[in-house]
Amino acid sequence: MPGVVIQHIPRAPTAVIDALAACGVATVHEAQGRTGLLASYMRPIYAGARIAGSAVTISAPPGDNWMVHVAIEQLQPGDILVLAPTSPCEDGYFGDLLATSAQARGCRGLVIDAGVRDVRDLTEMSFPVWSKAVFAQGTIKASLGNVNVPVVCAGAAIEAGDVIVADDDGVCVVKREKAAEVLAAAQAREANESDKRARLAAGELGLDMYKMRERLAALGLRYV
Amino acid sequence: MPGVVIQHIPRAPTAVIDALAACGVATVHEAQGRTGLLASYMRPIYAGARIAGSAVTISAPPGDNWMVHVAIEQLQPGDILVLAPTSPCEDGYFGDLLATSAQARGCRGLVIDAGVRDVRDLTEMSFPVWSKAVFAQGTIKASLGNVNVPVVCAGAAIEAGDVIVADDDGVCVVKREKAAEVLAAAQAREANESDKRARLAAGELGLDMYKMRERLAALGLRYV
Amino acid sequence: MPGVVIQHIPRAPTAVIDALAACGVATVHEAQGRTGLLASYMRPIYAGARIAGSAVTISAPPGDNWMVHVAIEQLQPGDILVLAPTSPCEDGYFGDLLATSAQARGCRGLVIDAGVRDVRDLTEMSFPVWSKAVFAQGTIKASLGNVNVPVVCAGAAIEAGDVIVADDDGVCVVKREKAAEVLAAAQAREANESDKRARLAAGELGLDMYKMRERLAALGLRYV
Amino acid sequence: MPGVVIQHIPRAPTAVIDALAACGVATVHEAQGRTGLLASYMRPIYAGARIAGSAVTISAPPGDNWMVHVAIEQLQPGDILVLAPTSPCEDGYFGDLLATSAQARGCRGLVIDAGVRDVRDLTEMSFPVWSKAVFAQGTIKASLGNVNVPVVCAGAAIEAGDVIVADDDGVCVVKREKAAEVLAAAQAREANESDKRARLAAGELGLDMYKMRERLAALGLRYV
Amino acid sequence: MPGVVIQHIPRAPTAVIDALAACGVATVHEAQGRTGLLASYMRPIYAGARIAGSAVTISAPPGDNWMVHVAIEQLQPGDILVLAPTSPCEDGYFGDLLATSAQARGCRGLVIDAGVRDVRDLTEMSFPVWSKAVFAQGTIKASLGNVNVPVVCAGAAIEAGDVIVADDDGVCVVKREKAAEVLAAAQAREANESDKRARLAAGELGLDMYKMRERLAALGLRYV
Amino acid sequence: MPGVVIQHIPRAPTAVIDALAACGVATVHEAQGRTGLLASYMRPIYAGARIAGSAVTISAPPGDNWMVHVAIEQLQPGDILVLAPTSPCEDGYFGDLLATSAQARGCRGLVIDAGVRDVRDLTEMSFPVWSKAVFAQGTIKASLGNVNVPVVCAGAAIEAGDVIVADDDGVCVVKREKAAEVLAAAQAREANESDKRARLAAGELGLDMYKMRERLAALGLRYV
Repeated sequence: MPGVVIQHIPRAPTAVIDALAACGVATVHEAQGRTGLLASYMRPIYAGARIAGSAVTISAPPGDNWMVHVAIEQLQPGDILVLAPTSPCEDGYFGDLLATSAQARGCRGLVIDAGVRDVRDLTEMSFPVWSKAVFAQGTIKASLGNVNVPVVCAGAAIEAGDVIVADDDGVCVVKREKAAEVLAAAQAREANESDKRARLAAGELGLDMYKMRERLAALGLRYV
Repeated sequence: MPGVVIQHIPRAPTAVIDALAACGVATVHEAQGRTGLLASYMRPIYAGARIAGSAVTISAPPGDNWMVHVAIEQLQPGDILVLAPTSPCEDGYFGDLLATSAQARGCRGLVIDAGVRDVRDLTEMSFPVWSKAVFAQGTIKASLGNVNVPVVCAGAAIEAGDVIVADDDGVCVVKREKAAEVLAAAQAREANESDKRARLAAGELGLDMYKMRERLAALGLRYV
Repeated sequence: MPGVVIQHIPRAPTAVIDALAACGVATVHEAQGRTGLLASYMRPIYAGARIAGSAVTISAPPGDNWMVHVAIEQLQPGDILVLAPTSPCEDGYFGDLLATSAQARGCRGLVIDAGVRDVRDLTEMSFPVWSKAVFAQGTIKASLGNVNVPVVCAGAAIEAGDVIVADDDGVCVVKREKAAEVLAAAQAREANESDKRARLAAGELGLDMYKMRERLAALGLRYV
Repeated sequence: MPGVVIQHIPRAPTAVIDALAACGVATVHEAQGRTGLLASYMRPIYAGARIAGSAVTISAPPGDNWMVHVAIEQLQPGDILVLAPTSPCEDGYFGDLLATSAQARGCRGLVIDAGVRDVRDLTEMSFPVWSKAVFAQGTIKASLGNVNVPVVCAGAAIEAGDVIVADDDGVCVVKREKAAEVLAAAQAREANESDKRARLAAGELGLDMYKMRERLAALGLRYV
Repeated sequence: MPGVVIQHIPRAPTAVIDALAACGVATVHEAQGRTGLLASYMRPIYAGARIAGSAVTISAPPGDNWMVHVAIEQLQPGDILVLAPTSPCEDGYFGDLLATSAQARGCRGLVIDAGVRDVRDLTEMSFPVWSKAVFAQGTIKASLGNVNVPVVCAGAAIEAGDVIVADDDGVCVVKREKAAEVLAAAQAREANESDKRARLAAGELGLDMYKMRERLAALGLRYV
Repeated sequence: MPGVVIQHIPRAPTAVIDALAACGVATVHEAQGRTGLLASYMRPIYAGARIAGSAVTISAPPGDNWMVHVAIEQLQPGDILVLAPTSPCEDGYFGDLLATSAQARGCRGLVIDAGVRDVRDLTEMSFPVWSKAVFAQGTIKASLGNVNVPVVCAGAAIEAGDVIVADDDGVCVVKREKAAEVLAAAQAREANESDKRARLAAGELGLDMYKMRERLAALGLRYV
């Protein structure tokens, strides 16, 4: 039944996507009601990357990276590849050649619930990857998968065109149609946080700033 | 039954604590009879931090970071926050706002058998954290826990005021009342090691330096 | 039954070994038919190391590092220590003193299916280690193991004198007697890749470069 | 944002559901193109159960089982409860009292990506559960979640009313609107298998029955 | 520093211990404020055992079961052996010979944060074990550990003489000095539950029985 | 490079193999110097099976079970299939049809470092399997592997014709050429154990029976 490539996918506006990247994963996750996180085992191959982009999704058989080539043709500048294997796998589906090709098409990075290799080259190329494993295990090109169908990647449901936000804290998905709304909430949250940060840095306690003492006492907190 | 904050805890002398930090985790662990290590999954969010401090302990419900606010009020300069959830959890209890507040009170770092977020900010702030996971998952403020009660954190029993030593090798706890004694043993070990290091660097073999050959032969070691 | 040290082991030519290091783990693994990788949990203690060397193997009891001392005497310049515990263990068998000793004898690094400690010192010494864990847990010197016998390390069968290649992607073993042949294949692969890389960087698609479109269509790939 | 209970959900016909149960997980999974499996860590608390039912889904905060009570009211005879925590958790959300209540409403079992307790009682009651863990850890009733919203449970996307099939092999989800079609394919597969089984039992080889020899030879299989 | 055997330990009254066994792990854990559980990976080697007893604790080096022999001499009828290795280990410290010896002294079972073997024999002997692993790996008798010192076993702090309760749900520890008080709370809980069970079995909803509807509505639960 | 089937493999005498089965995994493992165990995650799909047989090995690509068909033709009565994937995989390579075929040729069971399905059928057929996972995930038939080449399966090096012993304690491999010698040692060990068992059952302590007290005292064991 696999073997479908959906060619035309909707994308959120670039300005919204870029602004979500600036907010970062933790803020965006909070702004949309603490939803959308991928599992904590999805770690970046190097520290410091902070990106957002439209998901081009890949559903691939275990140990078969053929559909990555197919997906690369579907990339537009600003996209992020998202690969979910059809059963658990940590093989190295992706390395420096594929990254070169993806980067040439404007791809901003890869999120893969499997393995990646050539991580030194990828780091030098500034092509960020969030993966389940770093593993050199080669893959084959024998079976079809799907491109731009809905996938579950590292525990999160992702559709093509959804906005992926990724940084040192991990990866978060924002539903495309809610991207602007989430951005507004995230930016409001950020504005709110800088004031709090200053007060906390000056020594004010969260207990006072958030007026928690009374509620804690009501619940029975005892100081001894 | 939770809901207790113990306000006055004994602490080891600052000079002892700081000297333990200089010895490092591996030496301190050896000096106290190979005890006190937290589980190996407790990893630092960035390399190079090397701290020691008095434990301010937090026992918190899964996914609820309210007691962190309560604990921060109990911090004195030189303390380290130690959080153990009451059941396994990897949610992100702690981020840059809490770190700002803790750092404003002189806190040296956090040891948490759960998740942490905003790791890029924490790195820039030089606020070190040893955690089970990096995970942006937000937490709530709904239930009471305890502050400065004995906890088991990542497999180690820790009481408030015990000395926490943490570096790139992980985390070790030293019972407060034994801190001076352990320090003496650790420093003796260090003195002893620098001589050994020089001899080994010059090419002398451990087999000879430690006079192991005879005992190995007695046990039947065969060179073929 | 343990207690054997095999003193004379064959080694591959240094030029072959060094050239394999330059090819890197992913290329070497591909060049020998996608075999030889150690498990993906074997991670370097710091980024950027890229080595190859002849395996000096150690089979050691859990929590007992005595045979490391025995193995160090067997090291020749260019060797790599490979330690496999006889049952799963993450204790810290190896630290800065042993690294000093091994480095003094020309050892290029350690591959250990267990724990390592003093990782800050090892990093400063530029002594690379690929391990299952970073863990300060001390070990004893009570029981015999074997040196230079065949071992299974992190899922790979390794004999003394086999060539170990290790970099940021992990660890790969090359059978000693095939080292030259594998090198030739690896270098051919590399030559081939630089042309591909240039074409991909210029925007050519893998679908076209590898002439995949027809085969994909034959299997039924549908663009919708 | 949580706090929604969807009361009216579509369900597949009972006859289809029951027939899917009879086919079993492996056959149903194959019949729908090898899709729909939940992760392999979802294990039954006792052997021999084989059920299917309509999913009543629960999205619950970590360590908070309040929404299970809410969901039970939504149960109709033949339903299966499906619980996904909003972050990883193995607490025991469900025990014999809740099972008594669910069973009284005709619930056929529970699929939970978290923990379950009172497993001896549940076994005696013949109330089957597939879970990530058996764990007695108690939960609270403090925060809202959702009932009958789409969830990702153990890696599978599930909507309320989808058909859950569960047996000793694990758990599979069938999209409600495809249930009849999948059943037809599963039954065709079963019919086909009984003939094959007889021939294999009589000693015929799969190599011959499936006419594989020629294709294997063409790919280069060598008998030595 | 290890090498201590504490010979005289306090124990809770047998009647209290036996009554705690009858309550079971989940009820006892709840009765003491949801504390005392060992990690969920501690699983019984066979279903149906339900025991309680006084802990005779063993701190043992990895892969060394010598102290089990020492501990067996300290057993009194009704005791349970509790073994915690000094670093993570899954070797098979315990098998049918040790079980024969322990059973001859009235030992009711073993709780071990490591491996066990001869599980078929142990099952036939009705000697229950809760362990981290079933693993035949043999152990040595070379190093000292401690008997009846405080240990951390599978995440729980346990002192000699504490009451261990274990059944199909896992393992729970009750502080000896609180055993009677916890029992009273557990029995009260049980009495309370049988009424609830009957009402739930008759179809009454938890929402009504626990009067949850108003509080849920107040928090904003929406039925749609 | 894969694609080899070695047709003629040596086997140990049936009498030796059957006698090893009677000894069981723990005894055989001890008798050969505590070697040969497969990883503890290899668990039987049902309790009570106790088999031994000659290994027919399969090296298979991830998610591709084609070579199982090829291997079945190579089976002789008394053999055991041993499957190692070329990269980590938990797909269900094997189910009731393959078991029917294997059993028709006298195969005694399967040891697979991956998944198995149809476990209810396999249990009813009395076809035992030791596996890493129970998982219904289907596999394909697209790529070649090898039959009867040396493999590493769950951490143990296994050659075709080696004797596999498997029971409730797990799986152990005995090198074919040492099978008779290991059997003699195992039987000697068993004879020795029955006397010990009787003495321990009568209340004699291991401390006395093995004359451990003096050595413990010499090492400094202190009774307090």
